[in-house]
Amino acid sequence: MLLYKNFWMKSNILKQKLSEELIINKYLSRLNFNKVGTYNFKNDASYVKLNKNRKFVITTDSISENIDFFKDDDPKSIACKIITSNLSDLSSMGVMPYAYSLNLFLPKYVDQVWLRKFTNELCKIQKKYSFYLLGGDLSSSKTLKISSTFFGISKYNKVISQNKVKSNQDIWITGNLGDSYVGLQIIKKKIDVKVSKIKNYFINKYYYPKPCMIGSELSRHVTSMIDISDGFVGDLKKILNNKYGAMIDFNSLPVSLYTNKLLNRKILKKKYIFNTGDNYELIIVSNKEKRNKILKIAKKNKIKISLVGKISNKFGISDDSNNTLDIPKEFDHFR
Amino acid sequence: MLLYKNFWMKSNILKQKLSEELIINKYLSRLNFNKVGTYNFKNDASYVKLNKNRKFVITTDSISENIDFFKDDDPKSIACKIITSNLSDLSSMGVMPYAYSLNLFLPKYVDQVWLRKFTNELCKIQKKYSFYLLGGDLSSSKTLKISSTFFGISKYNKVISQNKVKSNQDIWITGNLGDSYVGLQIIKKKIDVKVSKIKNYFINKYYYPKPCMIGSELSRHVTSMIDISDGFVGDLKKILNNKYGAMIDFNSLPVSLYTNKLLNRKILKKKYIFNTGDNYELIIVSNKEKRNKILKIAKKNKIKISLVGKISNKFGISDDSNNTLDIPKEFDHFR
Repeated sequence: MLLYKNFWMKSNILKQKLSEELIINKYLSRLNFNKVGTYNFKNDASYVKLNKNRKFVITTDSISENIDFFKDDDPKSIACKIITSNLSDLSSMGVMPYAYSLNLFLPKYVDQVWLRKFTNELCKIQKKYSFYLLGGDLSSSKTLKISSTFFGISKYNKVISQNKVKSNQDIWITGNLGDSYVGLQIIKKKIDVKVSKIKNYFINKYYYPKPCMIGSELSRHVTSMIDISDGFVGDLKKILNNKYGAMIDFNSLPVSLYTNKLLNRKILKKKYIFNTGDNYELIIVSNKEKRNKILKIAKKNKIKISLVGKISNKFGISDDSNNTLDIPKEFDHFR
Repeated sequence: MLLYKNFWMKSNILKQKLSEELIINKYLSRLNFNKVGTYNFKNDASYVKLNKNRKFVITTDSISENIDFFKDDDPKSIACKIITSNLSDLSSMGVMPYAYSLNLFLPKYVDQVWLRKFTNELCKIQKKYSFYLLGGDLSSSKTLKISSTFFGISKYNKVISQNKVKSNQDIWITGNLGDSYVGLQIIKKKIDVKVSKIKNYFINKYYYPKPCMIGSELSRHVTSMIDISDGFVGDLKKILNNKYGAMIDFNSLPVSLYTNKLLNRKILKKKYIFNTGDNYELIIVSNKEKRNKILKIAKKNKIKISLVGKISNKFGISDDSNNTLDIPKEFDHFR
């Protein structure tokens, strides 16, 4: 299924807090009628089996004003965000996009200038990854909200599950962690970066995220993948699914040169870097024998990839010296 | 494609009002990359060709608090509305539902009691028509908004287009026109109905709409279908597509016994009945030779069906005496 995301609310009715988990487990999961392709709503996407050799993968995501973006953000950035979050989910399932639909809830401030910028960016990304708009729905609204449903067709008849792992398998990360988070902190004026080139580097990572689309090519060589939407630790925990743990070499966790400088100068704490989402890189789990194949595919696609640890039988996420990776409370939706 | 609906807004930027039509034609339509299955965004659904014999039909619709329903409405009614509007679109394309996804934007007042009622109704409708939930997305929001994307698989490899008509073809309507509109007027206290049985009949038609699901069975015998979402006249015009007109026997337009009483007592004007949406019946266009087949399928499914006129070469919608069917301004989104 499509993971239920970005959800947080409280309720005193029935003496239990409403959480994403509760809504899914108690109310929505029974609606999947136990169909295999829904993964019991534990994956970022689901599939429909078309025939013996073909699966149609479906994922959906929504973004909202004041949560995922702000009114004055460049429409190009908003287009990037709704498309990237969906493409990233498809990539983690091992498929490339085929087509999509759009539900637009448009407020009065959306004008033709806005629409031109927004659709120009959609068009650009569509051309880059070869997919088209199937249709959609328009509504008026006080604040801007966008839902998008994406369709992908499996190339090798393989759809990657989010939690098919076993002990001693490799854990990889694509790209760098934390750049988008630093960008947001700069925008919020919580971090001050003087050099405008570096400042723009981070801000661009926040406003214009790019999906890591090597999932489809990797799909024959991996057993599990997930895109990082809730932070490395949070998403790794989803892969581990309360059945396994992970030994991580914390020093191998990839950060950009610029982020590294901020860490060295203690402007930034490392634990935040590992627990912030929206960077759309992939966590990949594969067998050791596949190392060369994976490195080769990453190199061919000019994607940075880092081997950061392995799956372990011992619960929890820790390093060689048994230090547990501390998860700051603010990034856990359910506590 | 999926028709862009329920959209209305104004803008002075670029000296042109923003309308659903403008947004689709100027900004969104170019994003379909001229793919056949999108029908240039002129249909209520689009399809993806899976192989020689199979098409996957996709439609999406959104409903919003204060537009399509109100905060205090029974969650069962809200579930009915989001599912019915999508099922009805699938039926008009000639397919049955296979699965769907849900994007829920939930405000704080949604609690477990609400969720139970809402998902119980979803479950009931899913069982009735044999489809399941593929997944979705949760967000918090100030007002309740729901998007849903539906998937259907063509049974006879035939997907019905919305405007494939020619002169002298029959025009049919299923069910009755106007009951849901009368229900809404009673709720708004604009019409007063004393007998509670009759009052409840109308109110139920508004709160708990049912889709007319004979589209799939009819698909081999018809050339065009559309579900009535903007009113009989507005939706018939979409079928005519500025290329044809229609001769309608106004007296044959189907209304319920109760609505007929209100018309006879002049409590209700006929023109409103013909121009109000959300009743989810089908307008069907077919060749004369198919009359018996169509009547037989309707009878078998216990669906009321009425032959109301024929396609004509003469523009406009009129009766034998050349009276034009007047469209009240308030129901045209673009004027």
